Formats: sequence, structure tokens, C-alpha cells
Amino acid sequence: MGHQQVPPDDITLTRRDLQELTSRETSSLDFDLASIYVSDAQYNRNIYFDTSPQAVRLYLRYNHWLPQVLLYVFILVDLSLALFEEPAVFALPTWATMLVELLCLIVFTIRLIHYAKVIPRDKFWKDPKNICIIVILGLTMVDMIIYGALKASNCRAVRWSRVLRPLLLVNVTEGRQLRRAFRSIRNALPQIFYVFLLFMFSLLIFSLMALKLLGKRGLKTIDGAPYFTNYLEIVFDLYVLVTTANSPDVMMPAYNASTGFAIFFILYILINTYIFMSVFLAVVYNNYKKYLKEEVRQLVRAKRHKMVRAFAVLQEQREEGGEPVVSQANWNQLVRLVQPDLSNAHRELLWSVSDDTNQGCIGKVAFVQLADLLNIEVITLKSRPHPLQGVCPAFYLSAPSRLLCQLVQHRAFVIVYDLIILVNAVFIGLDEENPLISNSEWVFLALYLLEILLKLYVFEPRAFFSRHSFWNWFDTIIVVAALIATIINSAMKSSGDYTSRQILDIVFILRVLRLIRVVDSIKRFRTIINTLIRIGPAILTFGQLIIVVYYIFAMVGMEIFKGKVKFYEADSSDPAKAYCGNPSLKGTPFAQLNYCKNNFNDVVSSFVLLVELTVVNQCSGFTLVTHVSARIYFVLFHIPPFITIIVTIRPQLHIFVAFVLEAFFVEYSVEKSDLQTSLEKKIEELELAVAQEKLEDNLVNAMETIDSDQGTGQSANSKPGLMFKIASKRYRTVDALLQRMFEADLDPEDFAETDDPAAPTSGNFSNPAFSSA
Amino acid sequence: MGHQQVPPDDITLTRRDLQELTSRETSSLDFDLASIYVSDAQYNRNIYFDTSPQAVRLYLRYNHWLPQVLLYVFILVDLSLALFEEPAVFALPTWATMLVELLCLIVFTIRLIHYAKVIPRDKFWKDPKNICIIVILGLTMVDMIIYGALKASNCRAVRWSRVLRPLLLVNVTEGRQLRRAFRSIRNALPQIFYVFLLFMFSLLIFSLMALKLLGKRGLKTIDGAPYFTNYLEIVFDLYVLVTTANSPDVMMPAYNASTGFAIFFILYILINTYIFMSVFLAVVYNNYKKYLKEEVRQLVRAKRHKMVRAFAVLQEQREEGGEPVVSQANWNQLVRLVQPDLSNAHRELLWSVSDDTNQGCIGKVAFVQLADLLNIEVITLKSRPHPLQGVCPAFYLSAPSRLLCQLVQHRAFVIVYDLIILVNAVFIGLDEENPLISNSEWVFLALYLLEILLKLYVFEPRAFFSRHSFWNWFDTIIVVAALIATIINSAMKSSGDYTSRQILDIVFILRVLRLIRVVDSIKRFRTIINTLIRIGPAILTFGQLIIVVYYIFAMVGMEIFKGKVKFYEADSSDPAKAYCGNPSLKGTPFAQLNYCKNNFNDVVSSFVLLVELTVVNQCSGFTLVTHVSARIYFVLFHIPPFITIIVTIRPQLHIFVAFVLEAFFVEYSVEKSDLQTSLEKKIEELELAVAQEKLEDNLVNAMETIDSDQGTGQSANSKPGLMFKIASKRYRTVDALLQRMFEADLDPEDFAETDDPAAPTSGNFSNPAFSSA
Repeated sequence: MGHQQVPPDDITLTRRDLQELTSRETSSLDFDLASIYVSDAQYNRNIYFDTSPQAVRLYLRYNHWLPQVLLYVFILVDLSLALFEEPAVFALPTWATMLVELLCLIVFTIRLIHYAKVIPRDKFWKDPKNICIIVILGLTMVDMIIYGALKASNCRAVRWSRVLRPLLLVNVTEGRQLRRAFRSIRNALPQIFYVFLLFMFSLLIFSLMALKLLGKRGLKTIDGAPYFTNYLEIVFDLYVLVTTANSPDVMMPAYNASTGFAIFFILYILINTYIFMSVFLAVVYNNYKKYLKEEVRQLVRAKRHKMVRAFAVLQEQREEGGEPVVSQANWNQLVRLVQPDLSNAHRELLWSVSDDTNQGCIGKVAFVQLADLLNIEVITLKSRPHPLQGVCPAFYLSAPSRLLCQLVQHRAFVIVYDLIILVNAVFIGLDEENPLISNSEWVFLALYLLEILLKLYVFEPRAFFSRHSFWNWFDTIIVVAALIATIINSAMKSSGDYTSRQILDIVFILRVLRLIRVVDSIKRFRTIINTLIRIGPAILTFGQLIIVVYYIFAMVGMEIFKGKVKFYEADSSDPAKAYCGNPSLKGTPFAQLNYCKNNFNDVVSSFVLLVELTVVNQCSGFTLVTHVSARIYFVLFHIPPFITIIVTIRPQLHIFVAFVLEAFFVEYSVEKSDLQTSLEKKIEELELAVAQEKLEDNLVNAMETIDSDQGTGQSANSKPGLMFKIASKRYRTVDALLQRMFEADLDPEDFAETDDPAAPTSGNFSNPAFSSA
Repeated sequence: MGHQQVPPDDITLTRRDLQELTSRETSSLDFDLASIYVSDAQYNRNIYFDTSPQAVRLYLRYNHWLPQVLLYVFILVDLSLALFEEPAVFALPTWATMLVELLCLIVFTIRLIHYAKVIPRDKFWKDPKNICIIVILGLTMVDMIIYGALKASNCRAVRWSRVLRPLLLVNVTEGRQLRRAFRSIRNALPQIFYVFLLFMFSLLIFSLMALKLLGKRGLKTIDGAPYFTNYLEIVFDLYVLVTTANSPDVMMPAYNASTGFAIFFILYILINTYIFMSVFLAVVYNNYKKYLKEEVRQLVRAKRHKMVRAFAVLQEQREEGGEPVVSQANWNQLVRLVQPDLSNAHRELLWSVSDDTNQGCIGKVAFVQLADLLNIEVITLKSRPHPLQGVCPAFYLSAPSRLLCQLVQHRAFVIVYDLIILVNAVFIGLDEENPLISNSEWVFLALYLLEILLKLYVFEPRAFFSRHSFWNWFDTIIVVAALIATIINSAMKSSGDYTSRQILDIVFILRVLRLIRVVDSIKRFRTIINTLIRIGPAILTFGQLIIVVYYIFAMVGMEIFKGKVKFYEADSSDPAKAYCGNPSLKGTPFAQLNYCKNNFNDVVSSFVLLVELTVVNQCSGFTLVTHVSARIYFVLFHIPPFITIIVTIRPQLHIFVAFVLEAFFVEYSVEKSDLQTSLEKKIEELELAVAQEKLEDNLVNAMETIDSDQGTGQSANSKPGLMFKIASKRYRTVDALLQRMFEADLDPEDFAETDDPAAPTSGNFSNPAFSSA
């Protein structure tokens, strides 16, 4: 459930194990084992697997990307079944969804059995994750059978086990990011709770004061209802006032009665909105950071231990009594196994960083760095001449051609195209019914195409479309897609009878998206955007977390509220349309404001409604419902589930803000890590560095000085045919970002400890467990 | 204006100065000079004063508390003149307000002349602060003359110089906290501006997309107006959506048309509300902290320099070639001058902390600490027996009396009274018309009085009412005030004819305030509340800042908008009441929602309106005005000033949150400073410490073991008649809190530098000046 105290997928390293490991010769199995340790360290997997040859082979297969992707695909299929099940968005017969669900269950069972074969039996049964999955699978089976039987006998049946589905996301082995997020939130809750209590206390005191001061004055709200006479209503009104959603309205009757009451409300907002919310954020931020730091500390410690184990497998004694080392040959074979897609040159670069003194072998300390080194993304740039130069050198190297290249690479070229984009923005904003405007679209498309073709003429195509040229890819895809969509649209239009709204929408979206390109030309904007892109994967963890919570609430909400509120299309003439098909809503603001589509009638509507409830300052829109007639609110929404939603989701938003704050600080301001610096230094030492400006401004000129392609560039000391560049501060994994976030705060002693990995105290490294005191 | 690049109230210390200082004998003037340096260091005053005897005397008088308080009183009077000037809350004749203002101007001029006499002439004229004040005074005089002349000839006249009044707050010498806040904000603005631009870009792009996707579908809003057809309106609607104020409403027409459009709005809110606002907060926090840290670094450096100057004045050479030192006698005299209210025992304690090795003199390093030592608040507790023990020892020490004392000090006593408070809360909530309920008030009052009397019986009254016993003072004042108010109220009631609403209100407020006491019984709550109380003074700086901005806007707003919207009392039957006395408001939501009192007709209404505009998610209430008919909004509010208000005040809120965050982190989590620790250690060493529990739980018992009062306790080594306690983490000045905030980050080299104060590079210490690059 993500709530277990100690996730027991840990590795215990005994002294006996180690001796056994070191006494053997390095075989193929040893390499498999070592590569597993390294890749576990690289991706922070904490799985206690059997070291028997068979289990190691199975474990390798378990960690293969294909079954992992398949697992997530099936979880996605399982989750999206809610679209087809009753109440359905697209109705499918019950037997079809049941069959698909059964297939999913089988896949999950197979995956679990695979996992059970990999780790020792006793570890398997001690792990709450596995128990959870088994329970979920069992309960789902039971529910399906009951549901099927009830349906067959035409009874009313509830598919209650659907609530359990998102829990699979948390409990699969790969969900460790999500589990960590849940743990951090749970650990930060007690502290947050005290601030919340104090805030509630302040709210209650203020409400009491409002009741005594204003209740007896016979004031009326704008609707003519008595003002501030019911304590519970006052509490609710003032609670909403904290979010400032009903701000002037709730104050106006008192303010109209006497100016002095404004002081009460201003004081209230100052204390409860500004001071308390700041303190709330401060406490959330502080606690979340504290626990996350502890988690990361444990993570780093576990990583070092795994690297030490890998070292123990491959180590050899060069001279009697000397320190054990790993030879370059073994190291090469290991890295090849761990990351087969690494180029030889890149591998050699990493080796030269590790073996700084050029001894042909590395000790334990240097070896342990490997996991972090592999996580630094190094861009390998092969300097190739432009293909046109090969095909027709006389033309490509002629003076006009070179002038064109210089023009395209000039700063003015960028500025001209930025201006074109701005003009385009104005044209988009104008009415496209005008033939001049609609024809101008072709001109702009041609201009954008020309830009891409010019760039392709100037820059080497493979460099232009390299994996890290985000904006080049973005441009090309948007322009080509817009071209295709516009052509289709024109074809349909000229065929006369039908203009597809969908196609037109796509054309519009693509046109507007093109404008985003301007951002890349302004350096400060680029910094901010790049920072956001880099912390993106970490934010996605929160996305999963939100989906888990939403899904559970949506399932429960659908079972309770489905059909209570009905939505009628705009052209419907049903009289029930005026009150959303529910007579008790007659004349209420809910119906008047046309909120009928905010219902729980299918999973998509439920999600939208939940998002609204999260986003909308708790309830502003929906308080309009309560405000006038609390009755309707209770009838419709049965307040408790909604209070639960708010209380559950709100802290997450705060934690989200806290996380973005922290990640942004690190990304935005901090320099590179020590390891990255040493890698960069080595790259420069070997004269393989690509100057940033060179790369961007005159890649062609730089390449022209290199006479011909040097092949794969095996020897790094020859004239460089290969160039390296560290992908600035990009991380391969979210964990690497986390580690980076707390690097300054992490105790150096934690790393020193790895020198004695077999010591009983440090041998057992579990994920962190905090006492909830 | 608070915007000057380099505030030039700096001290330049040349080598010649120092030599001159050291060669003299320590005279009375020297002590004055040294004490000025120390107190300047203590309160971080950076004033370059003349060191001539006359100027030193003047400077001492300039820093006296009386003229400083007077100055602020007159500034307050000057600012509050707006209440009486037209458009007035309480109208006074023009000649009266003009006369008062003239008096204020004269006071400010005298203060400025005093300042001019203290510092060298060239420094005076180089300081933008002084120029500002002179310009303000001059312009105000000119304005008053013109206004008087125009009034006399019955022309329409505008008192435009009132806008300048709050700038006095910023530019007086004592406004350095405020100036620092302004500087920090100004320096953080460029970075914030880029994020804001990017946010605006994103807003414009989304609006364009909304226009293209939704504008042509012929959708209608709930009011039947065309939906999303005007680009500027879309921009405004989406801008408000960022604050989530109009959240479901703005989305509903599109959502009703097609479920897919929900994706557009969800994406918009995710990006612009959550991501961008988080990034915004992160950037504000980061930049504000960075600049504040730099300011504090400079502050600390300046403080050390001043202490070194003071040391140079008092230093003497004990042995040839030895380090210069300050003798205990000189040190004592200095401290007596700097802080006359310090008890002898406290001074001896400080000396023993400075002179750790008991040599009778201290070197420069120990001397420099003095300013910080004086800023640590040490509570001196005289252990006195209870006065009743002196009057009637046989009775007070008898067994029943001692039992009573033990009972009152028991934990259960607190719990019983907490329960009484809770019961009281319920009774307050009930209807006070019921005679049972209204009479119960007397019971509760009696109970609370009994509690205070019992405590006074048990604890020594002077200890009970010591300066730091916040809750004791709070209790007593509230209970006694409630008693008096209730008696008056009853007397009026029984006299039959008249019940004063005001008195009743006060009774109610006092009753409810009593409930707050519960917070003190719960330890976690106490921690949070104490933290808030401690960061209170720092928050007040922001209060001043807000007042400066509000005042200026209120003055401008009043001149432009006064009388445009009229408020009619509830019992008025004027037909103009329905549209706030402005025909163009007929039928608008502004009038319908009864917002008529939100106007600029006097300074109080203006302030309330400005607070509303700040608080209310930018405009939610007022967008109701725009939403339906943008015309009214423009007519009424002439959008530009309001946009300015929002853009000016919003970042301040963010900075406020950032500041509270930072201060809260420090106060809530960090331990005491090194100096505090060493002071505490010394207190314990001298056996003068008061154990915290002792103090709280059984002060009487502890005192009973001490046979008799030892007088003033001159000798610290005798049996202690005096006890010391460090006032936990309380600071005397805001600067001390700031210094504490960044203590961990401050470079130790900054302090090392003070060893060579005469070095030309470090001699000139101005306030920090940042390049705005």
C-alpha cells in the first residue's frame, strides 16, 4: 500500500559471502553478477536476489526493459478499463472488460512469480509489497466472480475491487519513486498536522468572535438570508475566506453596517491567509526536505554497497599484500555488459577518468564511482563533413555556398525569423475568414520550411537531428505536421462539402505551438525553460501520485453519485435540463450556473470534477452552491467525501510546491557535481571538448578544419574525430537529481563507511524507516 | 527615495585617524566616542559622524530615544492628517490641518538640521536621503501655499504633495530596515521580471489558442454573451483563471460543448497556476535571500569595524610590544555608558564571558564580541521569597498553605482550567439571551480571577509579572478588563433604558480572547506561536513597506475617484442607492452585490479597498464587474492604476512569504548561536543558571532552599541570590535575527578581516551596492 514501515527489498552482505566471492575465478557468471550490481546501483534498485547462477540469469531477464514496459502497459490497460466499464464513456459488454481484466491479472501473476523465483523465499513472504499484490489480485478475482454471478442473475452489483487497481502502481517493484514520495509525505504529516490544528483553532476562535459580534445585529446577506447567525456556517464561510475566494462578499454586510468591522476581516485574512499559509508552507517544505534528505542518504549508502559487491566479484590481487584492483579488461567487459550502447570512445573516456594515473587497473574507490559516472550523460559528437560536401565538394565549398552558410549562422538570421514569428502571431490572431489572412498561412509555412531546409544545408543532418537538439526536433515536427494538416484541410475545403472541425483544430494548435519557438532565442527564458524540462521527470512522480489518489476517489464517487446529476446537450429541449435532471436542484445556483456536466457519471467526468475541486480555491464555484442553500450541497455531494478529497489533496499541492522549489534551486543555481567537473576536466585534457559556442555558431567551420572522418576514433590521442560534451546538468535518472539536491548536505562519512562493507553494522542496508514519533 | 545606489552613511577609517586615536589618553570624551561606536554597532547604525567633541555630544543627543520617538509621532501625525483633510473621515477646517502639517514640517526640519550638525557637510550633501527629505519638505511647503491661495480664491485645488508623505518614513535615518527591504526587492526584481515575462508569454499563447479553438464555435457564456471571441477578454479571463478565482465558470461553456476542452484548461492550470507560480516563488525566494544575505554580510562587516574603532579608542598597551588590550575598569565604564540599565551582575557575567581566562583585560577579538553579547537578552531573576512569607511566615509555611501551593503547581491544575475554558467556549457559543447562560459568565469570571489570585499566592508577584511572562500579563489584563466591562454592562442594563453596543462588543471580544490561553498548554502549539511572536518584529518591517505603498495609492486614488461611487446607509430610501449614486452602474453586478462601500471617498475606505484588491485573488469579486460588462470596470476603475497596484503589491506578498519561510526555518529548527552557547556555558559554570523546569514547575520550592535574599548579589561566586536565564532565542533587534539567519552562510574570512582594520581595502565600508546587471 506504499505505507509499509520497512520495504524489505534489501541486500544483506555477510563476510562469508564476500570470501566466497573473492576466492573464485572471474567467470561469465561473475560478470553477469557484477553487471547486475552495477546496474542496480545505477538505477537504485534494492532487490535482494539469489546469487545462484539460475537466479542471476532470471534476474537479468526480470530487469530487461521489455517485461518492465509490458507490465506498465498492462497496468495502464487495467486502469483504463474504467472507461469501458459501467458507467462507461464507451460502453463495452461486461464479458469483454472482464476478459481483458483477467488477462491483466494473469500478466501480473506471471510477473510476481518471476519475482518470487529471483529472490529467496523467506524474503519474498516478508515483503509487504508482494503481500499487497497477492491480496489485490485475490480480491479482484473474488470480486469479478461475485460480480459476474450477480450480473448473470440480474442483481445489482458493485465492482468494488476497482478501487484497488491504482495500488498496483505503488506496489510493483518499479514503483520505488512513488513509494518514496508516499513515505516522505506520510513522515511529514505529523508536523503539518499540528500547524493545521493550530490553524483550525484560530479559525474556530475567529468564527466565535464573528458570531458574537455580528450574529445579533440582524444583518442580511445580499440574498436576504440572515448573516453570520449559524456558527457552522460562519466557520465554513471563514474557511473559504482563507482561500480569498469569497473575499469581498462575505465581508460586505458587516462592512456596510460599520467600517470598524473591516478591521476584523483584515486581521483575519492577515493571520490566517498570509501568516498561517506561509508557516504551513514553511513546515511542509522543511519536513519534506528533511525526510527526503534522509531517504537520499540511505540511497547513496546502498548504492556504494552494491558497487563494493561488484568490486568484490571482479577484484584481483596484482601483487602480494597489495590492495585488490580491477583490471582494465575486466572493467571494459563489465561496462559493455551494463551499458551495451556505450561507444568505445565514451568507455575509454570513463576509464581514463577512473584510472587517472594511467596504471591499467583501478582500486575500490575509483571503481565505486562507476555508477555515478554512467549516470552522467555525455554527448558524443562525431564530427562529420556535410554529406553534400562528399557528393559535390566543388559546389558546396564554393564562395556563394559558403556565404550562404555564414548568413544562416549569423545572429541576424535568428532575429529575422523571430520577427517572422511575431508577424505570424498577429496574423493568427486576425480573422481567418479573410482570404488574405488564410492565404498568408501558406507564405509562413513556406518560410518555416525554408528555414529548416537552410539549416539542413548548413549543418550536418545527423548533428542537426541529434538526440539532444530538442528545439530542432520540435520545429521540424511542428512545421511538417502543420504542412500536412493544412494540405488535408485545404483539400477537404476545396472538395467543397465538408470541413472537418478536428483537422482545423489541429491546424490551429500547430500554428500557435510554432510561436513557442521564440522562447529559445532569449537566453534567460531558455535557462528557465531548460530548468523546467530537467525537473520534469521528478514532477512526473507527483503526477503518478495524484493519479493514484484521483483514481480511488473517482471509483468511489462513481459508485455513490452516478446518475444523480444529468447533463443534457445544448440542443436538448427536455425540461429537466434546467435542473440537471434532479428535481432537488431546481432553482439552485448549481443548475443556474450550468454546472450539470460536473458529475460522477463516468470516469472522465469524475476526473475533471476532481481536478476542479483541487484547483478551484477549494470550493469557490461550489460554495456558490452552499452559499445560498446548504441543503443542495448536502443532498448532492454528501459533504464528507469532498472534505476528504480536499484534506487529502491539498497537502500534496503544498508538497508539490516545496519539491519544485527545492529542485528549482538546485537546477537553477548550483554548479556541476565534483564528478562531472572531473569528467569535464578529463575531456578537456584529452582535447576532445566541444566549445559551446563552436557547437552552436559555426559547427561547419569547425568541421572544415578537420580534413576527413577518422572512423570510430579508437585512439583518443590522435587528432579528434570525436568530440564529447557533458549534457550540461541533465540527469539520466530522477535519483541522480535527488542525490544532487542533497549532495552538499550528505555526510562524507557515509561514503567512508563503504571501505568496510562486510562489517555487520553496515552490511544490512534497507530503505530508511522512520519512527513515527 | 529608498532607491539610491549607495547609501552613503558610511564610516571611512583611515590609518591616520587610528593613530591619532590610539595616541591619546582615555578621557570622558573617549568614553562617549567608544560608547557611540558600540551602540552604533549594536543597532547597526551606519552614520559617519564628526568626531569633534561638540559633534559627539550632539550625536549622543541625536540618538537619544526621546527625539527618535517624537520624530515617529510627528510622522504618524502627518500621515494621519489624511483622516481630517478633504475628502475627510472626520472633517476639520483646512486651516487646522494646514497648521498641524506646518508644525510637522518644522519638526522634520529641526531633526534634519540636527543631523546636518552631526555629520560633515560634504557627507550630508552627498546623501540622497537628505536631499530627498529636503525636496519633500520644499515641495510640501510649495503645495501648501498654492493650495491655500487657490482655496482662498475658491478654485479647485489638489493637495498633490500628500503622496510624498510616506516617503519620509523611508528616508529618515531610522528607516534603515525599510530601506533595506526596498533595496532587496529592487535587486530581486530583474530576475522576477524574466519569470513574469515568460509567464505572460505563456498566457498570451494559451489565449491565442483558446481564441482559435473556441472563438468560432458560437458558444455562449451563462449570461448569453459570446464566449471567447475577443482576444483581450480571453487574456483577462485566463489571467484570472491563474488565481483559480473563476475556475469552473470560465471552463463550463467549452466543457459543455466537448469534454476534450477540459484537457486544454487542465493543462493551462497545471502549467500556469502550479508550475509557474512555484517557479515564481522559487525565484523570488532565491533572489531575495541572496541579496539579503549580501546585505547582512556587509552589515556584520560594518559592525566589526565599528567595534574595532571603539577598541582603538580605549585600548592601552599593557607591556611593551604586547597586544593592545582594554582593561576591566574601562570596559565597565563603557558598558555602563552604552547600556545604563544593565545590572551589575549582568555586566560581570558578560565580562567573565569576554575575559574567559580571567586576566583582567581583554584583547581585540574578545572586545569585538561585545556588540553581539549585548544583543543577547539575558533574563535576570532575583530569587525573592514570597511577600506573604515575610508578613506572616507561620501561616504561609503551614501545611495547608504548602499543600495549596503544590496543588496549584500540579499538572492537573492546568488541565482543570483548560477544561473550564472549553466549557466556557461552549457557553459563549450558546445564546446569551438565556438568563442561565448570561449568569454563567459571572461564574467563569470568578473562576478566572480565582486562578490568578491563586497563582499570585503561590508565585512571587514580581516574578509572576516579569517582563517575559507574556501569558501571565495576557491573562490578567484580559480577565480584569472583562470584569470591568461586564460590570459596566450590567450596571447599564440594570439602569434599564440603554445597553451600549460598544461595551457589549468589547465584552464579547474579551470573552473570546480568553479562550486563546488554551494554546499555551500544548507544547507544540506553544513552539509555533513563540516562533511567530519572535519573527513578529521582522514582519513589521513589511507592514511599514505595505503602508508606504498603500498610502501613495490611496492618495492618488482619492484624488481621481472620490465621489464616483456613493454609499447609502441601509435605512436610506434614496433611489440612487440601487446603483451607488452613479447612473452608469445601474444594473451592474457591482451595484447588485452591494459593493458601494468599496470606494475612494475617504482614506479609510481607500485602505480597505486596497487591502481587498490585494487579498482577493487579484480581482475575483471585481471581475464579476468586468465579467459581464467590461465597460463598467473601465468607467469606474480606469484599469491602469489597478493593474499597477496588482503588479506592485503582488511580488511583495511573494517576498513576504519568502521572508516568513526563511525566518521560520531559522527560528523553528536551528540551535542557538555560538555566542549564546558560550554565554550559557558561563552562566552554568558560575552556577547561576535557572533550570527551565525549575522555573516553570516549582519556583517556590527552589526558592525555599535559599534561606534569604542576598541583596543585589555583587559577588557572583557566593551563594546565588540572582539567577540568569537566556531568553531562549529572542533577539533585541531585527538585525540580530537577520544575522542569525545567515550565520551559517557568512564567510569566516569576513571576520578575520577585522584584524587589520586600517588596511585601505577594507577601511571603507559602505552599505552594499549591487550592480543591477
